[in-house]
Amino acid sequence: MSKGKFIVVEGMEGAGKSSAIHVIEALLQQHHIEYINTREPGGTPLAETLRTLIKATDHQETITQETELLLMYASRSQLLANRILPALNQGQWVIGDRHDLSSRAYQGGGREFDDEVMESISRVTLQGFKPDLTLYLDLDPEIGLSRAKARGELDRIEQEKIDFFHRVRNKYQDLASKDSTIVTINAEQSMELVHQDIINTVQQFITKQG
Amino acid sequence: MSKGKFIVVEGMEGAGKSSAIHVIEALLQQHHIEYINTREPGGTPLAETLRTLIKATDHQETITQETELLLMYASRSQLLANRILPALNQGQWVIGDRHDLSSRAYQGGGREFDDEVMESISRVTLQGFKPDLTLYLDLDPEIGLSRAKARGELDRIEQEKIDFFHRVRNKYQDLASKDSTIVTINAEQSMELVHQDIINTVQQFITKQG
Ligand SMILES: Nc1ncnc2c1ncn2[C@@H]1O[C@H](COP(=O)(O)OP(=O)(O)O)[C@@H](O)[C@H]1O
Ligand SMILES: Nc1ncnc2c1ncn2[C@@H]1O[C@H](COP(=O)(O)OP(=O)(O)O)[C@@H](O)[C@H]1O
Ligand SMILES: [Mg+2]
Ligand SMILES: [Mg+2]
Repeated sequence: MSKGKFIVVEGMEGAGKSSAIHVIEALLQQHHIEYINTREPGGTPLAETLRTLIKATDHQETITQETELLLMYASRSQLLANRILPALNQGQWVIGDRHDLSSRAYQGGGREFDDEVMESISRVTLQGFKPDLTLYLDLDPEIGLSRAKARGELDRIEQEKIDFFHRVRNKYQDLASKDSTIVTINAEQSMELVHQDIINTVQQFITKQG
Repeated sequence: MSKGKFIVVEGMEGAGKSSAIHVIEALLQQHHIEYINTREPGGTPLAETLRTLIKATDHQETITQETELLLMYASRSQLLANRILPALNQGQWVIGDRHDLSSRAYQGGGREFDDEVMESISRVTLQGFKPDLTLYLDLDPEIGLSRAKARGELDRIEQEKIDFFHRVRNKYQDLASKDSTIVTINAEQSMELVHQDIINTVQQFITKQG
């Protein structure tokens, strides 16, 4: 049996990741491909505990940028070992709602951790593992945040100032331009056009697997 | 007002760290030096939550070595920012029950993470901060573990095999031999002699502060 593939959907809050994932699920189902879903941070009991700690707005203490970074990667380590790798090894595909690229963009771009620091902690945690395909939904942060606000309360990271999100977007764009496994989708288009781009990209990817 | 000093007590389970700390407290009190106590992992609400997650033996999932490493440093980042630095800046001394050297010995020595990995994660978290004086209580791990067992149940890390603890001790000894701020105490001696060594070392240190 061949190994499964790991497809990740990336982009800022309100970019349309959740709806993109539904489109990908429908496509995999048409092709009778078995898959599981993951979200980051989170996805195992311990990782979900860490997600809650990362996102909470009611801490009695300052959460340092370093703690945020370290907890993101601790969550990723648990998810990789206990859910992503076992599924791929059993031939299941994995659809990820965020993965390492989010840390590169938010902690590297937004929080301005050095590239070498990001590279080093990512290497320790992932040991070279990376997604087979990443769909990066690119849009102006103002648009994404207004969509996300309409959805409800903002968490600790979503409460950052707009400059933060411009740095996040710049880093996303920069990393996407350098990696052929990352496909950028214009997420400012109508939902119909965004979904068409996603279907085209994922359909091509599936076809290439033969 | 001059800044406080950070004195750390290090060594394996059962080495006598808790009793050593009582001796140091008595000495600081004699000198009318104000101090706080810390323990690692832990020491802030979030760090204590992480301590519980690190030590628990009843997880429904494998805790990866990477997660253990990352959570140790997340705990340390919270403690440094929220307790150690504020105390030192107010002129209080800090007596630490373990600090960075424990991660170097347990994760670096015991778990065999590369020196460069340890150096890099430590640098990100601590940004060059280090204790003014470390007392390393050195003893054969068999002796320490039998003392610790007499005290009660062993936690997840204490349940490691004896080879693990020999690697921890070797790393402690190696790092202590290279750093003039780390004083090695022979913890296989009687408690009276150990305490005498501690008093001599800390008394000299206090005298040097003038
Ligand atoms: N292309 C689009 N145009 C307009 N609204 C969209 C578009 N894509 C998603 N939305 C809406 O924006 C909100 C956030 O979308 P969602 O898929 O939850 O984003 P994410 O998961 O990236 O935060 C939802 O209400 C969704 O219906
Ligand atoms: N030098 C020593 N000789 C014999 N027993 C000791 C000595 N130092 C400590 N102990 C005992 O060993 C046990 C562990 O000591 P403790 O201070 O709790 O170690 P740690 O905090 O390093 O785990 C305690 O019961 C303590 O009384
Ligand atoms: Mg979503
Ligand atoms: Mg103790």
